[in-house]
Amino acid sequence: MRTRPLKVALLGCGVVGSEVARIMTTHADDLAARIGAPVELAGVAVRRPSKVREGVPADLVTTDATALVKRGDLDVVVEVIGGIEPARTLITTAFEHGASVVSANKALLAQDGAALHAAAEENGRDLYYEAAVAGAIPLIRPLRESLAGDKVNRVLGIVNGTTNFILDKMDSTGAGYQEALDEATALGYAEADPTADVEGFDAAAKAAILAGIAFHTRVRLDDVYREGMTEVTAADFASAKEMGCTIKLLAICERAADGDSVTARVHPAMIPLTHPLASVRGAYNAVFVESDAAGQLMFYGPGAGGAPTASAVLGDLVAVCRNRLSGATGPGESAYAALPVSPMGDVVTRYHISLDVADKPGVLAQVATVFAEHDVSIDTVRQQGKDGEASLVVVTHRASDASLSGTVEALRKLDTVRGVASIMRVEGE
Amino acid sequence: MRTRPLKVALLGCGVVGSEVARIMTTHADDLAARIGAPVELAGVAVRRPSKVREGVPADLVTTDATALVKRGDLDVVVEVIGGIEPARTLITTAFEHGASVVSANKALLAQDGAALHAAAEENGRDLYYEAAVAGAIPLIRPLRESLAGDKVNRVLGIVNGTTNFILDKMDSTGAGYQEALDEATALGYAEADPTADVEGFDAAAKAAILAGIAFHTRVRLDDVYREGMTEVTAADFASAKEMGCTIKLLAICERAADGDSVTARVHPAMIPLTHPLASVRGAYNAVFVESDAAGQLMFYGPGAGGAPTASAVLGDLVAVCRNRLSGATGPGESAYAALPVSPMGDVVTRYHISLDVADKPGVLAQVATVFAEHDVSIDTVRQQGKDGEASLVVVTHRASDASLSGTVEALRKLDTVRGVASIMRVEGE
Repeated sequence: MRTRPLKVALLGCGVVGSEVARIMTTHADDLAARIGAPVELAGVAVRRPSKVREGVPADLVTTDATALVKRGDLDVVVEVIGGIEPARTLITTAFEHGASVVSANKALLAQDGAALHAAAEENGRDLYYEAAVAGAIPLIRPLRESLAGDKVNRVLGIVNGTTNFILDKMDSTGAGYQEALDEATALGYAEADPTADVEGFDAAAKAAILAGIAFHTRVRLDDVYREGMTEVTAADFASAKEMGCTIKLLAICERAADGDSVTARVHPAMIPLTHPLASVRGAYNAVFVESDAAGQLMFYGPGAGGAPTASAVLGDLVAVCRNRLSGATGPGESAYAALPVSPMGDVVTRYHISLDVADKPGVLAQVATVFAEHDVSIDTVRQQGKDGEASLVVVTHRASDASLSGTVEALRKLDTVRGVASIMRVEGE
Repeated sequence: MRTRPLKVALLGCGVVGSEVARIMTTHADDLAARIGAPVELAGVAVRRPSKVREGVPADLVTTDATALVKRGDLDVVVEVIGGIEPARTLITTAFEHGASVVSANKALLAQDGAALHAAAEENGRDLYYEAAVAGAIPLIRPLRESLAGDKVNRVLGIVNGTTNFILDKMDSTGAGYQEALDEATALGYAEADPTADVEGFDAAAKAAILAGIAFHTRVRLDDVYREGMTEVTAADFASAKEMGCTIKLLAICERAADGDSVTARVHPAMIPLTHPLASVRGAYNAVFVESDAAGQLMFYGPGAGGAPTASAVLGDLVAVCRNRLSGATGPGESAYAALPVSPMGDVVTRYHISLDVADKPGVLAQVATVFAEHDVSIDTVRQQGKDGEASLVVVTHRASDASLSGTVEALRKLDTVRGVASIMRVEGE
């Protein structure tokens, strides 16, 4: 074993960073044996140096992250600050000064992954980011290495623990969205401002990263259709149950049937209770992958939290350190397929639509005509009437999102349709 | 991209080999893009050259596998023959003549993994074998790379599809073992001689491989306790249901509570219906991994079959080819921890024991005394009597297997105990 240690700098020492530092210390011998050389924590950049950080020697702490990544003697920089800046500049600077980078920064990778990969390649260094998607669950490595000889057609996943906790709570207790969110906040699963989670921004960033790797195509955050889950109601769950379904916020990356384009989207959807993703409870994450040869695979585990995320960061750290010792680099960006990313209108799936309608003869015929005119074929209709009002629940066969939007627009114009109570996609069948 | 192709030889062209050859041809462009150089099928060693193999050019087929691996111009040898010899000699010869090796051979790796890894290392070549455990499910790579910065404490898995199909059938239909086996045979899930599957030899080989990687310790097939599932009865399933459990044939690799030793075992066990492994149906495989930092992870997918196994082989092929191009090697054997492998007697778990006893007063007291004398604490007892005979179902708290064996031996000597109807371990709680 080499005795000169590999030098690692840590950018950020919050929930994840402090766990990374702790494990680097407590598991130092194991890490050295697995890497083939000891690893040394060479510096820790923080915003508030006064905060006591157990296990992090005070003389390693600095507020000058830029000076740290410019030192020139670093082998690896671990970035767990999050957000776009200063993370982006620090990572680029780290590459320019000879370090490889391990990052957990989904927002940055979804937005600027291509540029960061290019910076890594120009400098002959590695950019690893297993922790950016689904926390501890090995997903990036299986997708870009284990399935490198296969053709992935679909990635369907629960990649945000906060929203899964809320939806699971609504499903199991009948609570409304606000009540379930309040509980998630009280228990620390949701942040004070839950927008990034409940509006699907976090999941959309992960979908962009997953789609890019799965389809060997650049997929940016802007390419991902995004719909949050704040409008999911207890009534939606009741409808889902009647269909033998539950509701999950899903990230869905698909290759079109003809193979010539891909789509990426995040939205709440009904999935059958028999689907393995339906039984993913609480804040857990799980990702279902369908490929030509392997068939259906699922990866399940904790999608967030200090220790689980640190596990993913450290797995990358070991790999990157091993590459440093052998003078090689791991797989970089693979975007050779360069498939076009189609808009949401091209997505083909099934829909569950609840309409409030006038309770009089001929309404169903009118509604059915609108569906037919837009080439949306109806699978089942359920009509329920009370007090002169009625509801009509329509489940369609597979149709394009554009056709469905056209249908809904036309339905809204019917005198007999008082309102469209909910539209939800049905997935995983 | 390099234009000179990497040369790959295929040893064996059965169900898996022919899929590997097919995908190498149909996905040639994708593989080239992902590797950075084209790959060329340079030879295929088979036993029966007369058999028509679609997509495999006749001039590549040879019966002289030894000459093929000695060619000296091969970059990678893919071994999908199975069994100990001639696979072992061919792999060693391939290393000596400069090739890296991708193998799907669980029996050989469980028996001679250390020697094969040593041969790879001596020659500066790779030995990859993702396909050896749980078919298409990425498991070896996540364990030895993604979790390289973590400490794995437990691997608990369904790693044999044939036995899972049989047990699932018994569970869902109430069928007996023989009836379920007959159906598995008729459907092609069980081989004409099902011994390797139903007696747990196949799962034990996989347990040895998984334990070795998870604990950075050499674990040989002989170190794995093995019990088949041929004696599981419909009555056992009825008992399991009463406990809210089902029965699975599990491969279990555990680090002892003090961390200083490990165990590996394969046997049927009751697991709670709420455990994610309980809902693994048919011939699917799933492996649950528990580690210090990541927590609980699960990997699920098809555990066998030509295309799924080929997916795993090709993922390895891409990785090994990339290593060839960069002049590096991937992670080799990691056995630095060298923990002792404890015998089955040291395993601590819970037990479900059914006794046929005389239906008279005092029997329960006698039985309870025997448990107490052997330091096995009883959790619950259920007594059922009919026609002068009675059955006593005892579920214990956690105890060592040695204590339990002592208890059972003593119970058999009691006049009032007519027989021990079944003993089953209870896992996953």
